Amino acid sequence: MSRTVRIGLLGCGTVGGGLVTLLAEQHGQILERHGVDLELSRVLVRNPDKKRKGVEPALITTRSADILASGCDIVVELIGGVDDAVRLVGAALDADRSVVTANKALLAAHGVAVFAKAKARGLHVGFEASVCGGVPVIRALRVGLAGDSVESLSGILNGTCNYILTLMEEGQSFENARARAQELGFAEAEPSLDVDGHDALQKLTILSELAFGGIPVSEVSLAGIRDVTPADIRRARSRGQVIRHVAAANADDGTLRLSLRPELLAASHPLAAVRYENNGLVIRARAAGELTFLGRGAGALPTASAVLADIIDIAQAA
Amino acid sequence: MSRTVRIGLLGCGTVGGGLVTLLAEQHGQILERHGVDLELSRVLVRNPDKKRKGVEPALITTRSADILASGCDIVVELIGGVDDAVRLVGAALDADRSVVTANKALLAAHGVAVFAKAKARGLHVGFEASVCGGVPVIRALRVGLAGDSVESLSGILNGTCNYILTLMEEGQSFENARARAQELGFAEAEPSLDVDGHDALQKLTILSELAFGGIPVSEVSLAGIRDVTPADIRRARSRGQVIRHVAAANADDGTLRLSLRPELLAASHPLAAVRYENNGLVIRARAAGELTFLGRGAGALPTASAVLADIIDIAQAA
Repeated sequence: MSRTVRIGLLGCGTVGGGLVTLLAEQHGQILERHGVDLELSRVLVRNPDKKRKGVEPALITTRSADILASGCDIVVELIGGVDDAVRLVGAALDADRSVVTANKALLAAHGVAVFAKAKARGLHVGFEASVCGGVPVIRALRVGLAGDSVESLSGILNGTCNYILTLMEEGQSFENARARAQELGFAEAEPSLDVDGHDALQKLTILSELAFGGIPVSEVSLAGIRDVTPADIRRARSRGQVIRHVAAANADDGTLRLSLRPELLAASHPLAAVRYENNGLVIRARAAGELTFLGRGAGALPTASAVLADIIDIAQAA
Repeated sequence: MSRTVRIGLLGCGTVGGGLVTLLAEQHGQILERHGVDLELSRVLVRNPDKKRKGVEPALITTRSADILASGCDIVVELIGGVDDAVRLVGAALDADRSVVTANKALLAAHGVAVFAKAKARGLHVGFEASVCGGVPVIRALRVGLAGDSVESLSGILNGTCNYILTLMEEGQSFENARARAQELGFAEAEPSLDVDGHDALQKLTILSELAFGGIPVSEVSLAGIRDVTPADIRRARSRGQVIRHVAAANADDGTLRLSLRPELLAASHPLAAVRYENNGLVIRARAAGELTFLGRGAGALPTASAVLADIIDIAQAA
């Protein structure tokens, strides 16, 4: 017994391309294991002349209205940015389509309104890929800890900062390390989003809303990694410590305090083992205790894996 | 908008007692966040005269038929063991009740039949608590990696073995460490289940079925920790390594090989940081890459947290 579920894809860049590849590779296994026959109904792109491996040219369009008109069951938003994304996601929900998105900026800015609209219409919004790429931290907070109370979050949420700090541990300069992260393609186009902590703050905001939704924020302190010097890193190392850019949320006094800053961690700390562009999150919950999640926080395939898991989950719930 | 969901509880020992406590503490938050009003409809126990904090005496029964007769929506099996458990879980499914269980022995022995019966009737079987206690590894494999292909699993699945090895690192004898684990209450009643690897093999079997279901097992190699000597541990330490009891599943050649044995791990290995009674699992997936999950693998409240998450998930899906 299987059911066809048609995907309207908004955006076919790095993550969208990864999703197209993964869908093709995994189609048979998903059909067999989950009983869902996934197919692309239409793909919205900015440049229709670019060659896109694995996408039927007839599916490509530059007109957003074509996506809903294609009769898709689920809309997958991978265009990034805020303004177009919030308009297209809103239109999808208004047309009774559930949505999957990897867009942290969209959710940090408009998440509350998007989730409220979806809930009112009995629709789903999957956003596992928006934080920590392929590491299922959103599902852990949404479902795995649904009967528990989160006390604190502490994580490495920006792979570029962590990559730079790891390369500095290996003796490279800040500038060289940042340039290398850009070459490798996981740095944001605008470097300050990474190194000044804005990207990590968006992700921490999404996680905190899930973990502590409703608790008022009393304090946000934000420091990036520009002021971390090679001497700081050498001094830490000589004491058996490492420097990591840590995003933390604590709600122990009835208000929520968010902080992002370089921190000294003992080598035995679970986040000290997070190296290069990896991400990590430590969740402390009242009953479950301390849970640690580590893995690849970005990249086409890890992010596409999380997007596809959300698509299958929604397809099965429908 | 809320809905009452009634729970028939089989067993009120360590984990059952933890669930009763957690349900009472979290009832309001679960109602508010998830719209589910959870209540106990009946509680099956062996000894009705034992005082059980937080359980209305009128709910206690020693007759298993009373559980289904109570009009419960979900049956939660926490009696442990295999024979009674498989009979009661089967009866619940036959009566169209979804089931939540923490019973690894039941699933290792009868999982395939239990899941087939549930699927045929459109029912759910939640079993997050059966492996790694409060750490959501089952959900990661079932849902988080639904669109991916798992290549290998590697984990520390038995808290008692890991506790003994950690205390031996601190200079204690095997016998003292094992006695201490039993005092603390997380060792199995029958010590050989832990130290000879049988408990970990049951858990690895459950994880492998999820990750590699359908791939034939070509090899199982099982070694416990009885032969690990203090000298082995000192030698490892002098080389910057640790000894951990590692459960591993690999399917790289089209057949599945399971192994459980003491292994030397570099101090930087993600499982080397797992100490005392904690558990850990490293999943390598084709698209997502390497994912690491660490946390408390046993204990009343961590396990109850996982059971309650499954209850809420099923209640919301119904």
